[in-house]
Amino acid sequence: MISPGSRNAPLIIGFTEDPFFTCYSIVDERSAAFFAIGMAQQLRQPVIVLCTSGSALLNYYPAVAEAFYSDHPLLVISADRPPYKIDIGDGQTIRQDHVFDRHIGYSANLKLDLSHATDTVSRYGKKLLNEELALGEQQKEVASYNREEVGRAMEVLFTRSLPVHINIPFEEPLYNTVSAPEIHLSDIGKPRKKEEPIGDLSACLGHWNKAKRKMVLVGVMPDGEIDPKWLEKLASDPSVLIFTETTSNLNHPNIIPSIDSIIAPIEKSDRKEQEFLDLQPDILLTFGGLVVSKKIKAFLRTHKPKHHWHVHEHKAYDTFFALERHFPCSPNAFLSSFLPGVKQVEGAYRDGWLSVRDRYVDMRTEYVDQIPFSDMWAFDSILESLPKGVMVQLANSSTVRYAQLFDMGKHQAVYCNRGTSGIDGSTSTAVGAAVHFPEPTVLITGDLSFFYDINGLWNRYIRPDFRIVLINNGGGGIFRILPGKEDTANFKTFFETSHELDARAVCELHGLEYRSAATKEELRTALKGFFDPTERPQLLEVRTPSDVNDRILLSYFDFLSSSGKSQT
Amino acid sequence: MISPGSRNAPLIIGFTEDPFFTCYSIVDERSAAFFAIGMAQQLRQPVIVLCTSGSALLNYYPAVAEAFYSDHPLLVISADRPPYKIDIGDGQTIRQDHVFDRHIGYSANLKLDLSHATDTVSRYGKKLLNEELALGEQQKEVASYNREEVGRAMEVLFTRSLPVHINIPFEEPLYNTVSAPEIHLSDIGKPRKKEEPIGDLSACLGHWNKAKRKMVLVGVMPDGEIDPKWLEKLASDPSVLIFTETTSNLNHPNIIPSIDSIIAPIEKSDRKEQEFLDLQPDILLTFGGLVVSKKIKAFLRTHKPKHHWHVHEHKAYDTFFALERHFPCSPNAFLSSFLPGVKQVEGAYRDGWLSVRDRYVDMRTEYVDQIPFSDMWAFDSILESLPKGVMVQLANSSTVRYAQLFDMGKHQAVYCNRGTSGIDGSTSTAVGAAVHFPEPTVLITGDLSFFYDINGLWNRYIRPDFRIVLINNGGGGIFRILPGKEDTANFKTFFETSHELDARAVCELHGLEYRSAATKEELRTALKGFFDPTERPQLLEVRTPSDVNDRILLSYFDFLSSSGKSQT
Repeated sequence: MISPGSRNAPLIIGFTEDPFFTCYSIVDERSAAFFAIGMAQQLRQPVIVLCTSGSALLNYYPAVAEAFYSDHPLLVISADRPPYKIDIGDGQTIRQDHVFDRHIGYSANLKLDLSHATDTVSRYGKKLLNEELALGEQQKEVASYNREEVGRAMEVLFTRSLPVHINIPFEEPLYNTVSAPEIHLSDIGKPRKKEEPIGDLSACLGHWNKAKRKMVLVGVMPDGEIDPKWLEKLASDPSVLIFTETTSNLNHPNIIPSIDSIIAPIEKSDRKEQEFLDLQPDILLTFGGLVVSKKIKAFLRTHKPKHHWHVHEHKAYDTFFALERHFPCSPNAFLSSFLPGVKQVEGAYRDGWLSVRDRYVDMRTEYVDQIPFSDMWAFDSILESLPKGVMVQLANSSTVRYAQLFDMGKHQAVYCNRGTSGIDGSTSTAVGAAVHFPEPTVLITGDLSFFYDINGLWNRYIRPDFRIVLINNGGGGIFRILPGKEDTANFKTFFETSHELDARAVCELHGLEYRSAATKEELRTALKGFFDPTERPQLLEVRTPSDVNDRILLSYFDFLSSSGKSQT
Repeated sequence: MISPGSRNAPLIIGFTEDPFFTCYSIVDERSAAFFAIGMAQQLRQPVIVLCTSGSALLNYYPAVAEAFYSDHPLLVISADRPPYKIDIGDGQTIRQDHVFDRHIGYSANLKLDLSHATDTVSRYGKKLLNEELALGEQQKEVASYNREEVGRAMEVLFTRSLPVHINIPFEEPLYNTVSAPEIHLSDIGKPRKKEEPIGDLSACLGHWNKAKRKMVLVGVMPDGEIDPKWLEKLASDPSVLIFTETTSNLNHPNIIPSIDSIIAPIEKSDRKEQEFLDLQPDILLTFGGLVVSKKIKAFLRTHKPKHHWHVHEHKAYDTFFALERHFPCSPNAFLSSFLPGVKQVEGAYRDGWLSVRDRYVDMRTEYVDQIPFSDMWAFDSILESLPKGVMVQLANSSTVRYAQLFDMGKHQAVYCNRGTSGIDGSTSTAVGAAVHFPEPTVLITGDLSFFYDINGLWNRYIRPDFRIVLINNGGGGIFRILPGKEDTANFKTFFETSHELDARAVCELHGLEYRSAATKEELRTALKGFFDPTERPQLLEVRTPSDVNDRILLSYFDFLSSSGKSQT
């Protein structure tokens, strides 16, 4: 993923002429790095982003932070000026080394290789030669230092799946000078993560086999991460309640995919405390990355499990202030060791809550049938219409929250940037992910996310089967559904940030076909054939009325809690 | 400059309800911060940017770095989660404290004020109380710590004119809770920079009054920064040669505004070394911020002055590896102390080079008359057509470099973000600057800059008299004029990044009127009345052929050097 420049010319030439690399060109570095995240998300292997000197690099930061929290191996390479030209008033020059230190796996700041620039040294005189500037014999030391630093970065990149940054200074002239790169990535080899032993499971098994209430909660997880046979075994145990999210990419008849539809009615219930106690697990077993539902986090923090174990190759956040153990391995590695020792425990824990689920599924249908055209109604229709096998990319933040209310993802892989949960790169990520997915990709996005990342469409790599469904409610409707909002006089300007943009012009700019819908009937018509093959990518703009959406959503939770008390 | 969010709700409410502050709402934080830079550039006083938690903050970084190198007092305020909720898997949560440490004047990371959130503390239990969580008596200590930290940030902001960052954690609930802000900015007062004594000037005056060749070089400087009487005195001395740039905002018959038009022909001359020796100054006196011309930097680094003194309130970069003295004061403060002791020195230094200047001015007219429609021809026409009194904002990087070839700015104030010289915020900066300039503003930009910062137009604050002239040559033509480029097979994709976007759709999206021109005749027609008052802002897209521009530019320097040898 190359962004243009002059200082990085030697690297551009190096990478584009090396057939090992498939190169892409994107001008806006913010978008380029999110595009790379989309590719890394699908490929599950490192993707390089390469830029010139100066603030170009800083535009990578939002995606670097997303990669840091979502475990995407993003290799950031920046071209830099030689150290003695930094902070002396040269253009396009900043302090590039260690600039991402708060959110990076490793920062390698290479030393200057002057083998091609002896002219410069003689021109500026020896007094400028400091430890960064090495000649003759010292040149070997520089090469060895650089090789070690790159090796360390590669180690972190490949074994810990974190973003790393390699900053490379270049002296002028930048063209026609380097006959061969000093460091061949292939020389370094691909470090391999050692499988760590899972450790003694007997204590955990002891607890598990005695506990009547075990909750499995799955955060963001790529499609296909858990072997169906292990899921089947987990889900067939009546003492195990499995909560998933749309981004968990897990499906089974015995799981509960819309957490908030369970928790929200309890929050409104007269028997709130008793129902929460009924739901509180003895053991909480978690898989995957970050959890979207704020409600489950709040619930589990106040009603802590006795034991919380997290399974993840790299990380274990103490999300519920109750973490007891981290199993640093893949879900399958853990489950294949753990489940053979598990004994089924009878009880009503799972089935009681599955019946609550069945009730809300019926009630959701009933509710959606009676509401007017709105975000919620539109989501229901859109998710219903999705073809089997496509990949769905969800933008932050109202989009992913709405999607959580429905049983989506039975027939689709679902992704969302939940590392930082930013709205800054959803489109770029989706376009990048689509490049490496065999079937078509559908991005579902809100208006603020869409216009924020408008440059996600400024590239030549959007597949003709790429589809965007844009729910345009004219502003940040999310702030109406977050708890505690109030109608201040400043609300529309500073919270909702209402606007009147429409996406037709964006489609014209970037060569997408455009459809729109502003009523139930129009949406039904617009969705017909929307996913059929076309020569150009397509966008469907769904314009919903901004003032009804929050009321309809809040009433939904009231409806769920009023018409059928949730209880085990 | 407020970007919407939920975590920052208490701050949004606080600022928007305080009549002391004029508030603006911009969704894309990258653009918002550059917009704030534009305002700070014109107001010469601090401007606040305020955002929510998470990656929102990181999108400020390109502008923070620009502010850091251009001395704009940008006050970045970010809302954060409480410390115990960071790195535990909560959404929209990153490590916000000290995230800009490589390019910030001061980072204040406030402690949590829990006076409104005792409920939380009791819910999560006392074991979570660490030093960040203070109650009762401790609350006073927190308030005092926070007040001191904010005070330190304000000190740097007001006295050193650097960007500072204040990170403020908030516990939920975020609305309806804070009756009055804990810290009133007005309590803290506005720190004032003490005028530092300039120091003993006698040694400098001794050198100056003996030297036959004194060069004054002025970088980026706001309009009106040097009193005309001091400029007159400097410019009337035949031993003083004054080099300015379009961004210096200085005008006088005896100055040379297009440095490259002098240096480029020398570089190509047969008598190159002798001519450079003729130009080499004994004393170099510099004012202002960064210098655009790469040629003058290269020349002065190889032909160093005996003495280099820099006058700037805050900083002195050793741009030419020859810095001897820094006068940390305003140009007027320095000149009013220095010039009264100056004796005029006779000689041909200034007049010799002024005659070279007069020759290239004539030759430029001759050259432009004979070239076909191209970037250079278009620039000449556009600059000619600019009304008196408007402000001109130049984008990076080919735009400002082209502008340097002409005598622009005699009747206009000229600005460009040369701190990092990025293309990432030129439009946003121009729109923000226009808000505080009495006359209309004209942004001249290239296509990559324009589409990069497309969100610079996504706000409600574009004045109807705002004008954009977009030179669209279908890609990054700059890489064709930088020294050393070669025509590799990958050139068009990875260097020039050629594209076929046009700006008509952007105008449609954001409600601008649109004109275009692709020939000399069309441009002449399009410029007629373009600057007349209208109800909506206007954009003129000038489409030049990408393949002739670099040749025409390079031939220009050949033309200058061939037809009249530059010499003193």
